[in-house]
Order: sequence, then structure tokens, then C-alpha cells
Amino acid sequence: MEAIFGVDIGGTNIKIGKFVKGELVEYSSIKTNKEENGKYIMSEIFEEINKMLGEDTIIGLGMGVPGPVVNGVLLKAPNLGWEPFDVVERIREEYGDIYIKVTNDANLATIGEHKLGGGIGFKNFVFITIGTGIGGGVILDNELHEGVTGAAGEIGHIRVDFRNRRKCNCGLYDCVERYASATGLVITAQEKIPGRNTSLTLENLSSKTIFDEAKKGDEVALEIVDDMVEKLATALSQIASTINPEAFVIGGGVSKAGDFLIDKLAKRFQKLAFFPVRNTQFRLATLGNDAGMYGGYYIIKKEIEKDRGYEN
Amino acid sequence: MEAIFGVDIGGTNIKIGKFVKGELVEYSSIKTNKEENGKYIMSEIFEEINKMLGEDTIIGLGMGVPGPVVNGVLLKAPNLGWEPFDVVERIREEYGDIYIKVTNDANLATIGEHKLGGGIGFKNFVFITIGTGIGGGVILDNELHEGVTGAAGEIGHIRVDFRNRRKCNCGLYDCVERYASATGLVITAQEKIPGRNTSLTLENLSSKTIFDEAKKGDEVALEIVDDMVEKLATALSQIASTINPEAFVIGGGVSKAGDFLIDKLAKRFQKLAFFPVRNTQFRLATLGNDAGMYGGYYIIKKEIEKDRGYEN
Repeated sequence: MEAIFGVDIGGTNIKIGKFVKGELVEYSSIKTNKEENGKYIMSEIFEEINKMLGEDTIIGLGMGVPGPVVNGVLLKAPNLGWEPFDVVERIREEYGDIYIKVTNDANLATIGEHKLGGGIGFKNFVFITIGTGIGGGVILDNELHEGVTGAAGEIGHIRVDFRNRRKCNCGLYDCVERYASATGLVITAQEKIPGRNTSLTLENLSSKTIFDEAKKGDEVALEIVDDMVEKLATALSQIASTINPEAFVIGGGVSKAGDFLIDKLAKRFQKLAFFPVRNTQFRLATLGNDAGMYGGYYIIKKEIEKDRGYEN
Repeated sequence: MEAIFGVDIGGTNIKIGKFVKGELVEYSSIKTNKEENGKYIMSEIFEEINKMLGEDTIIGLGMGVPGPVVNGVLLKAPNLGWEPFDVVERIREEYGDIYIKVTNDANLATIGEHKLGGGIGFKNFVFITIGTGIGGGVILDNELHEGVTGAAGEIGHIRVDFRNRRKCNCGLYDCVERYASATGLVITAQEKIPGRNTSLTLENLSSKTIFDEAKKGDEVALEIVDDMVEKLATALSQIASTINPEAFVIGGGVSKAGDFLIDKLAKRFQKLAFFPVRNTQFRLATLGNDAGMYGGYYIIKKEIEKDRGYEN
């Protein structure tokens, strides 16, 4: 049988899905081997795919990598130790003339959520993934919009304060991910907790503990969440004024806070956004960490349909 | 002969161009009659078109209106006194089954600049028009991106300060147009001039006098321009992180400051933008107030080509 593989390379795990006739038939998660600047990663992925392949024939591979990609060439992936690297070429060396697509991991997750998750039914939406950092992807007219250097949807680096209060890993100040990611929530908590009456302690801080206490009504935890919501809603209002999408789909670990987060975000957004874009919808992502793997399948499926003109 | 008309309705003048075989053959500018909530505007446009038409046959009309448009329906144009109004339907009543397109004026100017002006050669760019306010339009993959409620490119309402210093006409605070439009420049000048040693006087302030003095090296004028540049470069860096375009094309009255403005803007943008988008190009618009009228022609030309499949 013909098999398509969706692969999502993360900083800790690599998720590999095998799809036959539109169904996920096998799933694997392997550790990301970061030894020697990640030089073993690709061969370990191939090894795993070959094991999963069995008697089937690989006809396509869609892959997400944690860094900007232009025409299949990864520019940089600091989390893996990868420098500029032609990922498509490397896959081609292994599997020859199959369908290959490589893109940024957030973009791939965006495609997954579009086809099978929180983005179903939207022709134009922005996916925002909130974890250690903040990433995203943009779907316009049902197509992924990658941007001229593969950096569209890098909304974690939208500036939301002008006092140079928090320096970002990217070198700029006051990027939204310094306030509204899991990391940002913890920094805000560290600023707000000392001397206050709260169930939160500096020793056991995470986005989960902060949201859990906020849901119970802890005043300091609520302040921390409100600060995060203020900054994220600000960034989303900028995005809405630029591309006026139908919806924002919120994923990543922090989105496990669920409707509690989404409701606050939508409410604050309506106050901060320019009036014609105020009705932009808010949805939770539904695929969790598997979004990229599914996206890898769908990006290849689309290529095949373009070529063959039928559902695969 | 078959004639296409491009019409751009502004708050002061209406520009009408007649195009035959791809050439502008006649041009007219009439006053915008705002009496009785602009109820005479459309019939005065038709009258002028009929005069210009002569022996020719009108086959298409592309029109720009100063307000958001969804599927040919204008939502509101406060400058004209127009409430929700189906402009396409009104044109159809007059001319029957011809090609008709109606969109926001900044969007139409964006198409004009794309085909014939500062946007030539770019598949993805953002047009920014800086006048009394700030508007814009977005071209993605060579197509105008209007957004789900026609508000894409409304970048004048991106927030660039968080101290609620200047209230915008839209009801929000600290929109970029309150700092970086001609109006914004004058407000900043009024704040900075008193008690300072400068050639600028409160009596004779305009974006032109401010830029003229800045070019001569007046320190206060330079401060005013730098403040404008800071705010606009901030907004453009947000846009670049979202859609990662090839270029920004700057038009509108304030862009008459020319390379002096563009060079400052590009330089500051490179400092404020996320690294993968730092090389976004900056260009001056070239069509001035005629951009919308040309855009009106090209938006119809495209429709006709889609139907007939040849150059018209």
C-alpha cells in the first residue's frame, strides 16, 4: 500500500505518523537526539520510518522543523543545533523521488488544526501556540501563508510594551512571548507574589499552577492571568487590523487552561480591537502535540491531489 | 469602443478615469457633494461618466469608497455621510450587466500602486497611505487581501503606546495614526515646540513645514519626525511579524517627504523588527492621488481577463 508520513521534530520528542488511505495506521514518538549538533536526528527518523513502513511504499513525507524554512531550506534551529540545512535534499537522498514538504513546526501544526482541529471550517484564521514561547501560523484563503522568508505567523515577537522591561531571546525588548507564554506567566508571577497574600509560592510556579489558582479565585493569580491576557489581546488586535481573519485558534500547553483563558481573551480583545474586526472568533485548538504530525500528512495529501486530481 | 471607468471617491474630490484599450484616454475630477448626507454623489458621478463616455460603451466600473466594504456593500463612510449602502446595486441600476467592483479606497490605491506604481514586481507587500489619517492595503500572492469584514490593512489603528496618551477618532487610545499621520505630527509638534529654540511656529504647522525644517537640521523638527518614525516603524514591525511581506510601499501626502522619510523609517525598522523579517524593503508610492483611479481600472481589467481569458 502507499503510505504517507507526517513528522514533527520538536526539541524533546519527534512524532512520526504513518497514514494509509487517509487513516493514521501507526504512530511513534522518539527522543530528539541533540548530540553533536543534532547530526543523528535525520538518520534516526529514517530508521524509525523504515521500521514502520513494513511492506508498504512511502510516497510522501511532510515534516515540521523548529525554525524558519524558505523553499525547504531550514535557516536555523537553535533547539536542535542545526545551522542552515537543506532538509528536503536530505530526505530526497534517502527516499528519492517522493512528495516532500518541509516547513516550520508552527506552520505545520496550523495546517493540522485547519484540517482536523480547531480551525475546521475557517478559510482565514491565525493559529497561536502558547508554550515556552509563542509561535503561530496564518491560513489565508485556505492556504498556509509562509511569508517571503518563512517568518509569517512569528507573532511571539510582536512588541506589547515600550518600557524595555523584558529582554527577549531574540534580542528585542518586550515581545509578547516575554509576557504571555508559560515563561512570561512565571516571570510576572515572580514579580507579583512577594509580600502578597496568595496560594501561589515561588517554589512551585508554572502556567498550570497559576491558572489553577486563578480559577479558584486567587487574587494574585488572577492579576497574573489578566496581565497575560492584556498583552496577548493587544498583539491579536494588531494582527486583526492587518489581516482581519475570521478567527484565532489557540493551542500549545498554556491553552490547556481552556475556556477560562479563551473567554477572558475574547472579552479583552473586543475592548482593544478596531471596531470592524471586533467580532473575530476565538477557538481552542484540539489536536494538542499531534497537530504537526497531522499537518505533515495533509500538506502531502494536498500536493498529491494537485498532481493526481483525486482524494488520496 | 469598450470603455472601463476607474472612480475614486474622496472626502473632497472624486477622480474619474476613462480607459480604452488599456490607456487612460480621459480624466476628470469633480467636487464631492456632501449635501444631504451625500445623496447626490452617485448621480453626479454617473452624469460625469455619461459625459465622458461619448460614443463608447461602458463595460466596467471599478470604484473606491472611503469606508469598509464587504461584498460590494459599504458599511459606513462618515466622510460622505453614507450609512450602510449597496454601492454595487446602485451602479447596476444605472448601467445594468457590466463588470462592477467596489472596495475601500486604500485597497483600490494598493492595486493601482501594485500594477503601475511603487509596488510593481512585488507579489507580497503592504501599502501604507499617510495623510490626515493612516490607511493601507495588503497584497498577498498578487491578490488584494480584503479580510473577512473588509478591514484588512486598517493599520492606522495598530496600537503603539500603552499610556492612553492620545485618543483616536475610532474610540481607542494610542493608535499609530494619532502619532504618525499629518495630524499626529502636528499634535507632537504642539507638545514639543513651546519654550524651545526652533524655526517652527505653532501658527504655521503642517507635516510639510515640519519635514522642511527637519531637512534643514532644525533640532525640534527632527525630534518630531523621529517620534513619528519610531511609532510607524513599530507598527510596521508588527505587520512584518504577522505576514512577512517583501516590501512596504509608502504613499499619501506625508510621503512627499520622500527618501528623507523612507531612509529613516527603514533604518529604525531594522532595529525594531524580528530578525527574519529585517530585510523587508521600503519603497515610495509613485501615483499620488491617482492611485485609486488606476486601481479601479485594474480591478475590472482582471475580472474581464478571468472571463475572457485575454488582455483587454
